[in-house]
Amino acid sequence: MMGLTIDKISIGQSASFTKTISESDVYGFAGITGDLNPAHINEQAAAQSMFKGRIAHGMLCASLISTVLGMHLPGAGTIYMKQDLKFTAPVYFGDTITATCTVVDKNNEKNRVTLECIVTNQKGDKVIIGEALVMPPK
Amino acid sequence: MMGLTIDKISIGQSASFTKTISESDVYGFAGITGDLNPAHINEQAAAQSMFKGRIAHGMLCASLISTVLGMHLPGAGTIYMKQDLKFTAPVYFGDTITATCTVVDKNNEKNRVTLECIVTNQKGDKVIIGEALVMPPK
Amino acid sequence: MMGLTIDKISIGQSASFTKTISESDVYGFAGITGDLNPAHINEQAAAQSMFKGRIAHGMLCASLISTVLGMHLPGAGTIYMKQDLKFTAPVYFGDTITATCTVVDKNNEKNRVTLECIVTNQKGDKVIIGEALVMPPK
Amino acid sequence: MMGLTIDKISIGQSASFTKTISESDVYGFAGITGDLNPAHINEQAAAQSMFKGRIAHGMLCASLISTVLGMHLPGAGTIYMKQDLKFTAPVYFGDTITATCTVVDKNNEKNRVTLECIVTNQKGDKVIIGEALVMPPK
Repeated sequence: MMGLTIDKISIGQSASFTKTISESDVYGFAGITGDLNPAHINEQAAAQSMFKGRIAHGMLCASLISTVLGMHLPGAGTIYMKQDLKFTAPVYFGDTITATCTVVDKNNEKNRVTLECIVTNQKGDKVIIGEALVMPPK
Repeated sequence: MMGLTIDKISIGQSASFTKTISESDVYGFAGITGDLNPAHINEQAAAQSMFKGRIAHGMLCASLISTVLGMHLPGAGTIYMKQDLKFTAPVYFGDTITATCTVVDKNNEKNRVTLECIVTNQKGDKVIIGEALVMPPK
Repeated sequence: MMGLTIDKISIGQSASFTKTISESDVYGFAGITGDLNPAHINEQAAAQSMFKGRIAHGMLCASLISTVLGMHLPGAGTIYMKQDLKFTAPVYFGDTITATCTVVDKNNEKNRVTLECIVTNQKGDKVIIGEALVMPPK
Repeated sequence: MMGLTIDKISIGQSASFTKTISESDVYGFAGITGDLNPAHINEQAAAQSMFKGRIAHGMLCASLISTVLGMHLPGAGTIYMKQDLKFTAPVYFGDTITATCTVVDKNNEKNRVTLECIVTNQKGDKVIIGEALVMPPK
């Protein structure tokens, strides 16, 4: 049940999680967070915006990074310290997005791992680019 | 229905959103994102962790920042560009957290606003510290 | 699968539905409707209000009337025409409320039934008093 | 964080909230209220009804009125006293509905405000017509 300790983690190692983002994902996320911005839940307004339709919350898509970190690399027992995010393209309902985290640095003494975090859609477009800092389980 | 354009935004301006985080919020968020890390949904494992009980996802709490940006400041029509996050303390089920965003910089020519983002709990502890970059509606 | 036609309905007939209102009911309802009023989702603010704690949405409790009408009396195939509601007492998380609808008038020619609608809590306090007008299935 | 007190409210003032009603909204609402009437959750039966397909609960659509009252006009701290509703047209999955509340009367001494409540769909059809009585925050 425990994730990888720092000695089991190497630079270049990566893991990913993929999900097709449904209308119900976006609506559920809107309800939980209170972010009922028209871009997400008003098709009439969204159709007239620069995105031409309703889009998923950036933070919903970014949360798939947390899924990779907490479930796979390093996995259970990980403590999330920092996350930087750049939102580079919209995600539409029905898009299939993949969050991939790749180890780019580690510090065995301090028990810290830095991961590059990329979220792409089904066309390969990068929708989020970021970096995470975590403490793997001991 | 439109949020604030850049000329209506001034440095020092702030807005916030508060929610008591329920078990159902965390479980719903776990289901949507796929982050079913034991820290969030396994009370037996979580009770033996350093946090002594189930905690909310950092990204769930951080998403209340998005609520402030998309619903209040600047509000509807805002485009989210960047978000930096530092997770500084755990959030337990039943904690009442407040996300506050304060304008710290703006660039009228490029239509960019930088906001300091702080999430605190009911005791005033900072649970997240961050910075957002957004484009207000035109 | 069909509900009662008007000839099977008599004045004085009644039906009811009971549910213990959970935090997850209120949070789910808040998310679907967008009504994230602090009275429902902010325990700190609600504790300082005249109700001394978070309460359920009046419209959530009133919706149990729709459950009685659409599921039991008249049941499937009913068309909901009018609903009057008076909110007379707060409903707290964990309260067990019962919506009871009683036929008080009917018009066979026009196929209309009027029902008195009362929602009570576990102490017998009336929390909602109302009246509904429906068209039973033909 | 407080809504408008009665002295800040004037006759003719209005506020609105818009949402595209999704299947997940209707299913979530059905689950919370227990109103699993075939009109809402059985496409086979609904296709053969006079509405030719599944429709949203009238009370779900009416609840957007509560969102306007509790979030915008008067806003946080409002006490809901009465709501009258007439359901005038069906709302289908994917319809974008707007609840608009307009102040039609106020009583400063008793701290009461009466609002006309209209819910329309994307075609401008009125789907609900109603009236609300509320006590604004003091």
